[in-house]
Amino acid sequence: MEFRMVDLITKKRDGMPLSKEEIHFFIDGYVKGVIPDYQVSALLMAIVFQGMNENETVNLTSEMLSSGDRLNLEMIKGIKVDKHSTGGVGDKTSLVLGPIVASLGAKLAKMSGRGLGHTGGTLDKMEAIPGMRINLTIDEFIHQVNDIGIAIVGQTSSLVPADKKLYALRDVTGTVESLPLIASSVMSKKLASGSDAILLDVKFGNGAFMKTKEDAIELARVMVKIGRALKKDTRAIITDMEQPLGLAIGNALEVKEAIATLKGHGPKDLEDLCIYAGSVMLNEAKIVTSMIEGTKLIKEAISSGKALSKFKEFVKAQGGDVSYIDDVSKFPVAKYIKPIVASSDGYLKEINALEIGEGAMKLGAGRATYDDVIDLSAGIILNKKVGDYVHQGDVLCYMHTNKEDVVAVEKEIHDAFKLTNNKVEPLKVVHEYIK
Amino acid sequence: MEFRMVDLITKKRDGMPLSKEEIHFFIDGYVKGVIPDYQVSALLMAIVFQGMNENETVNLTSEMLSSGDRLNLEMIKGIKVDKHSTGGVGDKTSLVLGPIVASLGAKLAKMSGRGLGHTGGTLDKMEAIPGMRINLTIDEFIHQVNDIGIAIVGQTSSLVPADKKLYALRDVTGTVESLPLIASSVMSKKLASGSDAILLDVKFGNGAFMKTKEDAIELARVMVKIGRALKKDTRAIITDMEQPLGLAIGNALEVKEAIATLKGHGPKDLEDLCIYAGSVMLNEAKIVTSMIEGTKLIKEAISSGKALSKFKEFVKAQGGDVSYIDDVSKFPVAKYIKPIVASSDGYLKEINALEIGEGAMKLGAGRATYDDVIDLSAGIILNKKVGDYVHQGDVLCYMHTNKEDVVAVEKEIHDAFKLTNNKVEPLKVVHEYIK
Repeated sequence: MEFRMVDLITKKRDGMPLSKEEIHFFIDGYVKGVIPDYQVSALLMAIVFQGMNENETVNLTSEMLSSGDRLNLEMIKGIKVDKHSTGGVGDKTSLVLGPIVASLGAKLAKMSGRGLGHTGGTLDKMEAIPGMRINLTIDEFIHQVNDIGIAIVGQTSSLVPADKKLYALRDVTGTVESLPLIASSVMSKKLASGSDAILLDVKFGNGAFMKTKEDAIELARVMVKIGRALKKDTRAIITDMEQPLGLAIGNALEVKEAIATLKGHGPKDLEDLCIYAGSVMLNEAKIVTSMIEGTKLIKEAISSGKALSKFKEFVKAQGGDVSYIDDVSKFPVAKYIKPIVASSDGYLKEINALEIGEGAMKLGAGRATYDDVIDLSAGIILNKKVGDYVHQGDVLCYMHTNKEDVVAVEKEIHDAFKLTNNKVEPLKVVHEYIK
Repeated sequence: MEFRMVDLITKKRDGMPLSKEEIHFFIDGYVKGVIPDYQVSALLMAIVFQGMNENETVNLTSEMLSSGDRLNLEMIKGIKVDKHSTGGVGDKTSLVLGPIVASLGAKLAKMSGRGLGHTGGTLDKMEAIPGMRINLTIDEFIHQVNDIGIAIVGQTSSLVPADKKLYALRDVTGTVESLPLIASSVMSKKLASGSDAILLDVKFGNGAFMKTKEDAIELARVMVKIGRALKKDTRAIITDMEQPLGLAIGNALEVKEAIATLKGHGPKDLEDLCIYAGSVMLNEAKIVTSMIEGTKLIKEAISSGKALSKFKEFVKAQGGDVSYIDDVSKFPVAKYIKPIVASSDGYLKEINALEIGEGAMKLGAGRATYDDVIDLSAGIILNKKVGDYVHQGDVLCYMHTNKEDVVAVEKEIHDAFKLTNNKVEPLKVVHEYIK
């Protein structure tokens, strides 16, 4: 059967579903360079408006997956679990969770990304530890996971070329915001990386891609269905991003907070999330049969120092300087550490994570474009969280920066803290578990 | 102010109007080649879904107009009126209307197009008369209108380059069907051709681009508003395309029908349309003050032979063989003329113009793609119109073709005639007059 791309565009524009063969024609032709960008962007925009049903989304993911190589992790013994976060502010979970589950016998062979805009990336955070290599060869990657149970690296370029090409196009054509396109992009990459099970951390709130819990649940459900349809144990948790996760935002600051959490004195929301997500991953790895059992094992792994030891093994294996873990004062510290204080009394009802993330970026902690260089020492340390009562003059947070003039940013960060006279409950972290 | 195309796309995607400056940035950048096709096609698809308000559509038209040259017709004395049809089957109106209004003192300096798919084009029809030139120089064009009041030529390539580029992109990206994009495309071309007044013939029905009268009225209203906003006397008539116009479909066949109409024995619907549209154009040219006066003058122009003489002058001026007008038997005749008969009794409730147009195309009268060669003698002559009662075995129409095997087409053309047992009224041609 011969297709014409313009007919696919018109069909989707008019709200009709595309067949498996049509989606194959589109992805295959696009990757081969036969179908031009201008037809693909028109189809993507039609998808933004008309959506895709479950079958279409599964087929799109499957075709994207087929567009490139798939990692073969069969040489790694045991159940390989992978974890993906849809991105947020202060999200250093992988650095805590990875060592925890690896210390308990699960295998984490993870490919991660860099930060852009207000969201950070695990690779950037890892590089705050001197010597840490994020580009292992596939052989090194497999051997390391086999040896110590954990490796985190950058994505190899041969996986899912369709996603790379599509994402670059979506980025400049206003077609990023589409549930089936997001779901198929995430899932094609996760499925290509070859793990046996996947845990998706889908965040919602002002600092997340999905603004409402309902949207996050919908995205999670679609991704879980894609994973199941393509024969992977896929589960999701819906977690809060109405305020930054933990207290630290910024690369070295977040690594220090991850280390503190592994040492048993991390912020409660981060620890809660790691325990919950870790229990699900241990269950996926068939190491525990219940959340209660998982929670117990994880708490022991932290209190016994087992998880921290695993983190050191991981850092050492990837070339990082382990002495930084024992003595976190070795991490670079910004020239200026400036408190921001409350200008009135009240309960903290919101710490806008998007505004905090953008503030941290402006202090030097992030990139506005892919070419920007990150200041690893820069960022923000929160001193209060939603639900806290603050008095005028109380420190809300500290800015860490090497920049001289931060008056405008200071104002923006200050205004990210919203107060009210009514009592406010602290926010819970994990809202739903979808399996 | 500096714009980014991706922001314009996102804005329109989210249903917000684009400013005049943003539309300028888009059209100017696209024509200059600074903005790539893939961003433009995404914006066009967003416009398909979100539409454009009146201001945006006027600004889009104005920017497209500014993208190239405008014909300067000031050297032509008198009021120049132009007419545009949105396209239909059997629409030979320009060939009748042009000579009529020119014979009464209006100036018609018209740029026309070729046929594609089921719709015919005036230029193709003109070429059925041997010798007829459609590519005059601008000087020849202006002098001819000054001398004899009428010239019809192909569009020069320097007018509205933005429309050419946009239309080519829309054609392959499923973004043709958008009211503001259609309206701005038509109006930018008409406004660039330099006439003082414009009459739009907006057709509706199964053979037209607009399927319903309501849609046609909406399109007409938008185009009239654009014309007025850009200081041109612009009016529109809403006319029937639920069945082909007149009896002849196909190039030489239609020219012969146009000549017959100028001689006073054309089909009623075609004559009605020419009288109505002609009266409006004479009013725009300030030659008559009422439709009644216009109708009277036009009937006289036909009965006196004045309009036919003007047609001969026009054909002669553009190099055509005038002897064909006096002796229409000189036109090439197809090798096969086959009647199609009714297979049952009943009132004709529909002669599907789209199906008839496609049938005529398959008999050789039209192009499926721009590269196809037209058989000038091919086409269809209707023997019945909607409202007629037919008996089984009555001739519905005649196929004119040089093709041997037309069994499949014959079936399709036969099935374009729909019968019913209930009495059906003949269709009127002109439904609305929008000024």
